[in-house]
Amino acid sequence: MNSPNNPLKIFTILFLLVTLQSTAQKKALYNHTSSEIVVIPSKILNEDRTIYIHYPKLDSMNLSKRFPVLYLMDGESHFDMLSQYTDYLSRWDVNVIPQMIVVGIPNTKRTRDLTPTKSIINYFGQPDTSNISRMKPSGGSDQFLQFIQDELMPYIETNYKTKPFKIFAGHSFGGITSIYCMLTHPDMFNAYISISPSFWWDGEYVLKPTDKKLEKGSVLNKTLFYCDANEGVTDTGSFHTNLLKFDTLLTHKELKGLCYKYKYYPAESHMTEPIVAYYDALRFIYRDWKSSDAK
Amino acid sequence: MNSPNNPLKIFTILFLLVTLQSTAQKKALYNHTSSEIVVIPSKILNEDRTIYIHYPKLDSMNLSKRFPVLYLMDGESHFDMLSQYTDYLSRWDVNVIPQMIVVGIPNTKRTRDLTPTKSIINYFGQPDTSNISRMKPSGGSDQFLQFIQDELMPYIETNYKTKPFKIFAGHSFGGITSIYCMLTHPDMFNAYISISPSFWWDGEYVLKPTDKKLEKGSVLNKTLFYCDANEGVTDTGSFHTNLLKFDTLLTHKELKGLCYKYKYYPAESHMTEPIVAYYDALRFIYRDWKSSDAK
Repeated sequence: MNSPNNPLKIFTILFLLVTLQSTAQKKALYNHTSSEIVVIPSKILNEDRTIYIHYPKLDSMNLSKRFPVLYLMDGESHFDMLSQYTDYLSRWDVNVIPQMIVVGIPNTKRTRDLTPTKSIINYFGQPDTSNISRMKPSGGSDQFLQFIQDELMPYIETNYKTKPFKIFAGHSFGGITSIYCMLTHPDMFNAYISISPSFWWDGEYVLKPTDKKLEKGSVLNKTLFYCDANEGVTDTGSFHTNLLKFDTLLTHKELKGLCYKYKYYPAESHMTEPIVAYYDALRFIYRDWKSSDAK
Repeated sequence: MNSPNNPLKIFTILFLLVTLQSTAQKKALYNHTSSEIVVIPSKILNEDRTIYIHYPKLDSMNLSKRFPVLYLMDGESHFDMLSQYTDYLSRWDVNVIPQMIVVGIPNTKRTRDLTPTKSIINYFGQPDTSNISRMKPSGGSDQFLQFIQDELMPYIETNYKTKPFKIFAGHSFGGITSIYCMLTHPDMFNAYISISPSFWWDGEYVLKPTDKKLEKGSVLNKTLFYCDANEGVTDTGSFHTNLLKFDTLLTHKELKGLCYKYKYYPAESHMTEPIVAYYDALRFIYRDWKSSDAK
């Protein structure tokens, strides 16, 4: 308890600051939605992983209520957004999706965790010698998914009131990781959100298993939302071209039990797209949901 | 300092809870964006008004930076949403609107504050005898706007680093209050957001001053975003019919300096609409914004 960053010290400082402020100006901190931070020491990734967990307000009339879980990549970027969306959309007077738990996974080494293969070729098709530290290491998606499956999910399921229904959501590198997970670890999640997946990675590596792993007419029983925005064109193609390829491929496969939707946002950029796309994705996944539903 | 609700006691309890939790499970509270609560004793409304204030993270390189202010009605419903949108959209890597201060005004007596006239006729054109307490009192918008102008704005401008540019935003009853403010107190704000304004109130009362107060070809120098959703039709008309009337009226007036946009959301309900509309409204108000802009 004596390290400089221990929670006791941080909260003593916070406590004093708030007390001083409140005496002077009758102010208090605004009480945001219920979220907490937990640190999971990962043996698989050989590092401590900080996790953000947002959970619905407990219903005192129904303390045994359980919730589906949305696992979100790039937690540091989109956790507030998804926490706010799931809270608002599940309010009694909005009520178009169920209350859910949002598990935000902030990055430590983003490219390592959110790419399936080793590559130093950047988005423009060039070796990324100018910024090796960002592009290397890469190719750690399998270990990252193993961390989620074997270390993160058991923690969440032990410590929170979860239902079995699980969503995996990501943007850009997180977008390919979401689809890669559906193809290679199909038992982990029930629904996937893939916002502008970086299909360009390593010569469109993730498009290849899509073709190979999905047998024509096979049964998948999944929900998938994917999309892209106005993101320009490079020598190696564009997000839009790749998404159209993926969409055609899925249609051609005539999979059974795969409910999917592709949406193109020409008015949005790569970075504004998540705001509209995460909303549309949640509405799509729960398009037939009624508050009496089990999932 | 000895009242049961004083901040010192509340934060002592919070502090102990957090400390206990962190010892047991290595958890900490998630650090949401910077927001605080202040109570303003209003002489005009003769009551204490709780106000939520969200402000951008201070830039240590530019501590004198000032921010536009968005004043938001129905603070208890949409403050989290607007705080998250303004934070996300002004991030360095998104950067499509400026950082801004969001001032959320939660309701005490909603119908009193957010309607311009006394009326007991409800949305279905019937006297609201079944629920008098909700419909009465009404007609207090003038006092509510006076509270904002004479008590709230001076507080915000004294205590926060504000720029002169101000936005007034509301939904439903808040929507007519936003437009009513533009018509009757035109010096208070620079831009207005009116999501599904309840033009049905009191025989379309707010549509009348729109016609009377806006002289054809006059100069307004304002920005206005208004919209409606799939909200059904009653004997007294519909949101959609009234919005079309308002839109035609504005077009006919040929006002100078009024940048306005009308958007119809057929896929949204009255309650899901704010999610997409507040986003579109912010993008519209700042459609030509560059990070070097003064406003």
